[in-house]
Amino acid sequence: MKSGIKVFAPASVGNVGVGFDTLGLCLERPGDEIIARFTDEWSGLRITEITGAKGKLPKEVERNTAGVAAQRLLEHLDETERGIEFRIHKKMPFGSGLGSSAASAVAGVMAVNELFRRPLEKRDLLPFALDGEEIASGSRHADNVAPSLLGGLILTRDHATLDVHRLPMLRGLQVVVVHPQVEILTKDARNILSDTVPLKNHVEQSANLAAFCVAAYSGNLELMRRSLRDVVIEPQRKQLIPGFDAAQAAAMENDALGCSISGSGPSIFALCQNTLIAEKVSRAIQGVYQNLKIKSQSFISGINQEGAVKC
Amino acid sequence: MKSGIKVFAPASVGNVGVGFDTLGLCLERPGDEIIARFTDEWSGLRITEITGAKGKLPKEVERNTAGVAAQRLLEHLDETERGIEFRIHKKMPFGSGLGSSAASAVAGVMAVNELFRRPLEKRDLLPFALDGEEIASGSRHADNVAPSLLGGLILTRDHATLDVHRLPMLRGLQVVVVHPQVEILTKDARNILSDTVPLKNHVEQSANLAAFCVAAYSGNLELMRRSLRDVVIEPQRKQLIPGFDAAQAAAMENDALGCSISGSGPSIFALCQNTLIAEKVSRAIQGVYQNLKIKSQSFISGINQEGAVKC
Repeated sequence: MKSGIKVFAPASVGNVGVGFDTLGLCLERPGDEIIARFTDEWSGLRITEITGAKGKLPKEVERNTAGVAAQRLLEHLDETERGIEFRIHKKMPFGSGLGSSAASAVAGVMAVNELFRRPLEKRDLLPFALDGEEIASGSRHADNVAPSLLGGLILTRDHATLDVHRLPMLRGLQVVVVHPQVEILTKDARNILSDTVPLKNHVEQSANLAAFCVAAYSGNLELMRRSLRDVVIEPQRKQLIPGFDAAQAAAMENDALGCSISGSGPSIFALCQNTLIAEKVSRAIQGVYQNLKIKSQSFISGINQEGAVKC
Repeated sequence: MKSGIKVFAPASVGNVGVGFDTLGLCLERPGDEIIARFTDEWSGLRITEITGAKGKLPKEVERNTAGVAAQRLLEHLDETERGIEFRIHKKMPFGSGLGSSAASAVAGVMAVNELFRRPLEKRDLLPFALDGEEIASGSRHADNVAPSLLGGLILTRDHATLDVHRLPMLRGLQVVVVHPQVEILTKDARNILSDTVPLKNHVEQSANLAAFCVAAYSGNLELMRRSLRDVVIEPQRKQLIPGFDAAQAAAMENDALGCSISGSGPSIFALCQNTLIAEKVSRAIQGVYQNLKIKSQSFISGINQEGAVKC
């Protein structure tokens, strides 16, 4: 790894149940790794290796999420001539609802920024990471990119102006993520959604989102439990996820603070008060999928307060 | 006023723009006053006098908002036989969108609770006050009752379980309220609303409400300014209020943090950083109504942190 650097960009839970296209939180693991180095062998950025993607991700810079994000940042820095090699190690499932493309995009900009010894503040990398996310998802949504980059629980008030805010969270809270091995296309998960929301549900959901923020600031776990209820998106999307109702019931019976769909699914997340509860909840949800003969993968993680890092 | 007490219940701004049926804030004035005393001349509660209501409010206890609220509390206390006299002084406009019925209901329960030397905590008076609000407005909404009783900026997550939360607010913020003398029936203001909200607007409004809460906790005035925008209710209701667009523009040009409809209108509120700005904003909005030859009444008030009081 001579004269190279390694960066890690974590997975994230988008929406967090009550905050469709608005909330996101950063996990400690899994995530994406990029090893980057300068080279005299060629000019410009090249991706020479991608592991963990089963051949499904392109190495062409302009078609690769990490590549596009990195390239836009290189253009901004006026450094497009410099020979750079990326080796990308996807260490997380993609198409899982865990912000895989966001993690790639964030890893891409982090790698460039670290190679050039941090010409930009982390927060200023956000628009370039969104350029990468955009080619993967077709929209400039910061709800996975911002937490993966910056860490924490992030509220995005406005995506166009990147009006993002980190909310305080109680130390010790744990996030259980279970990824059942079924495929959902983000496009389908979007298309299934109704264009309108009943006024009554809009009021209930907004109040829950606001109360969730109040709970985060005041450390009120019981309020967090009452407010972590998605009455708008979850009822529509859960039909794409086999066993969702049973998994959610299992999580709540085992004292999760809340349980819903991570991003556009099929991963399910549960917020838990401590690691003991998190382990119970993880086993309970995985048990549901064992009964259904569906393979699943589970991660337990605190809320990552740091976001993407140079390793 | 021998052996009697006097209570004051303040007006309030419901919705606060971004929090339809969810947010409310308490004003210092105007408000309702009740003078109450025990008497041996009769048994039970009687309303002997109502001033400031132009004969429009009934004195029959079971048809009067303050009367019903007080009566329900008396039943709870098992004190329905005791002779009690209420004299009600409405010192605020009604049908104005300033929570007039909520103030009456709150004054009713406060008067009883003070007469009996506070058998209940203030917060526990809430359900009885809602009984009164219900006969006036037809629904058990706490978004005016809770701030009038408890003071401050209140988020109601759920009306049925009275899951209400007081948000911290920067000291010194001022609320301008202008009441143009046009009549809107709450019923009409409800009926004009569409049953559904476009998903895009739901997301934008929820994010604004959440960001407004974040701004309240973090004291971030610029975030408050950006988030105080109602894209769901205001565009539908403003057509009931002549001059609304001009009034709002005048407020924003004079540096208000935000300006929208108070409750179901026709009153307009503007949140301002300090008293100087508040005075400018008040004059600017009143100027709009002078030009339209519509009479208006203006109040400038801090956010009342105490709510209803014994005077």
